Amino acid sequence: MSTPFPRPINFRDGRVDMSHGSGGRAMAQLIHELFVTHFDNDYLRAQNDGACFPLPAGSGRMVMATDSHVVSPLFFPGGDIGCLAVHGTVNDVAMAGGRPLYLSAGFILEEGFPLADLKRIVISMAQAAKEAGVPIITGDTKVVEKGKGDGVFINTTGIGIVPPGIDLAPSKIRAGDAILVSGMLGDHGVAIMSLRENLSFDTAIQSDTAALHDLVATMLAAVPEIRTLRDPTRGGLATVLNEFALAARCGMLIREPVIPIRPAVNAACELLGLDPLYVANEGKLVAICPAERATELLALMRAHPLGADAAIIGEVIEDANHFVQMETAFGGRRMVDWLSGEQLPRIC
Amino acid sequence: MSTPFPRPINFRDGRVDMSHGSGGRAMAQLIHELFVTHFDNDYLRAQNDGACFPLPAGSGRMVMATDSHVVSPLFFPGGDIGCLAVHGTVNDVAMAGGRPLYLSAGFILEEGFPLADLKRIVISMAQAAKEAGVPIITGDTKVVEKGKGDGVFINTTGIGIVPPGIDLAPSKIRAGDAILVSGMLGDHGVAIMSLRENLSFDTAIQSDTAALHDLVATMLAAVPEIRTLRDPTRGGLATVLNEFALAARCGMLIREPVIPIRPAVNAACELLGLDPLYVANEGKLVAICPAERATELLALMRAHPLGADAAIIGEVIEDANHFVQMETAFGGRRMVDWLSGEQLPRIC
Repeated sequence: MSTPFPRPINFRDGRVDMSHGSGGRAMAQLIHELFVTHFDNDYLRAQNDGACFPLPAGSGRMVMATDSHVVSPLFFPGGDIGCLAVHGTVNDVAMAGGRPLYLSAGFILEEGFPLADLKRIVISMAQAAKEAGVPIITGDTKVVEKGKGDGVFINTTGIGIVPPGIDLAPSKIRAGDAILVSGMLGDHGVAIMSLRENLSFDTAIQSDTAALHDLVATMLAAVPEIRTLRDPTRGGLATVLNEFALAARCGMLIREPVIPIRPAVNAACELLGLDPLYVANEGKLVAICPAERATELLALMRAHPLGADAAIIGEVIEDANHFVQMETAFGGRRMVDWLSGEQLPRIC
Repeated sequence: MSTPFPRPINFRDGRVDMSHGSGGRAMAQLIHELFVTHFDNDYLRAQNDGACFPLPAGSGRMVMATDSHVVSPLFFPGGDIGCLAVHGTVNDVAMAGGRPLYLSAGFILEEGFPLADLKRIVISMAQAAKEAGVPIITGDTKVVEKGKGDGVFINTTGIGIVPPGIDLAPSKIRAGDAILVSGMLGDHGVAIMSLRENLSFDTAIQSDTAALHDLVATMLAAVPEIRTLRDPTRGGLATVLNEFALAARCGMLIREPVIPIRPAVNAACELLGLDPLYVANEGKLVAICPAERATELLALMRAHPLGADAAIIGEVIEDANHFVQMETAFGGRRMVDWLSGEQLPRIC
């Protein structure tokens, strides 16, 4: 007897049932035939409750980041909850200046969820992890009764290593610094909202979900003076800039005409009553760097496939009120305040 | 302006709303006034999307473990989802022989959940983390609509350091090895099920939820030859022994009269139609060690407050079928098979 499973799981018509979270035979089989098969590495094959790995060599520091993903719908133009869960945490590790090493994955499944959809999500995660070069080395599966969850929620936690000399923090931001973004803003949020609202456009707007760690490594290798990085997910660019302003006790001034936003995203935002500055991105970053290095950094970013539309969008200013302001296309200034209330629920 | 929050959160009568997951002002305030305040460490106060920490000194390996917690009800005799979420992951790190260093916490909150309950849970987590000496250094908060979750789900992920020379794995188990448990079995599962079924007993059965890393460190320091450790959570002792038997390609023989189970737990199991060998524990471990070290290990465990009721319950045997068998109190033998179906949903 090599495994205690009499017949393979039916991934075509089967559904998640409570026994898949029981700790017994059905759960062991799901782990074996789905997670271990697709995530495919020796850490998982060891099937302990934790995964051991070598202490990273050299000096520097480590970073840990966690993200639970509850995006709805689970599948959307340009991605799904699976690749999003990998990219989201890889990016959080990268924003600390870290090279991501390993991921964990915790699934909360709703009873009755189609196993075919779960398999599709797991394959997408596996593919994203492989492309990013960051294995999923340990995991956990729980099942809740029908009506107590929503299909699948996925937590990913990542750890990485931060090279010596890199110490990013919003508190290092200084008046005069340049504000850069790595590309077009708002794609992810608009892709999701268009799907929810059943809007269609001439050119479909796709989520920008992507792993940014290679772009970040390139940026930091050339410009280690970068003050801080952050990916503008929930709450978008406006939220990141307000967080930075508060942490650094300064103000931010951005210029509307140079903020890269696709015309289709602008149009969709107008239709949906959204402000693209507050809309989530899943493959973009905001960087603050000393003004004298901004042009060089921009050129570097533009030379990278994930930074082709990068732009310098403004600068850090002195402001005792820690306000974020925007010079509009018409030459006026408007406040870009903290998001109040909920603009886009369950976007990631 | 030191914070952008006009008035403090109402933790007495308030409820989770969608804006607490928006990435905007309400979420920032919840993180600030609840999580950062109670988890209380400089990693969290830095408020980056990831937390940086020094590369652990010395040699050895690291371990990563993750656990999502969906226990229902959220509060139970002897604990709640908060301390359980800390203990569960600390124990998974410890079972790999690791000294836990840091935890992450990912919350999935249901719209409408009372903030007073959330605060109670967070304080319990904070207390458990403090007692264990393992800070919660990074986190994430998501909110789902009413009816799409169940109050609160908590993922914790932990990392730790495994001392040089320690390499635990079920594949190291050999016929002739001794099987030990650290104490009374079934308390956690029976405490939860009694509450759900509204049973009351003369002496209330309390969950055994506890962090076992100090017990493990004591055991490994004296007996580094321990083959493997595992905490018998979902699926209980029976599941752990079946997993070990399969991984080590051997059999297991345990003796019913020496398995430590409280009379009240046995009685409750009979009433509830449960087999205590399959019932979850949250503060117990199963250890396999060479027979010649078993007596010494047992004495050590019994000298620890969390191992006072430890026992040697059987031994590993040769068996091409990888069966787990039990000698009953009446002298016969019965199979202790893999759990089929779901015995205790949402026990952890």
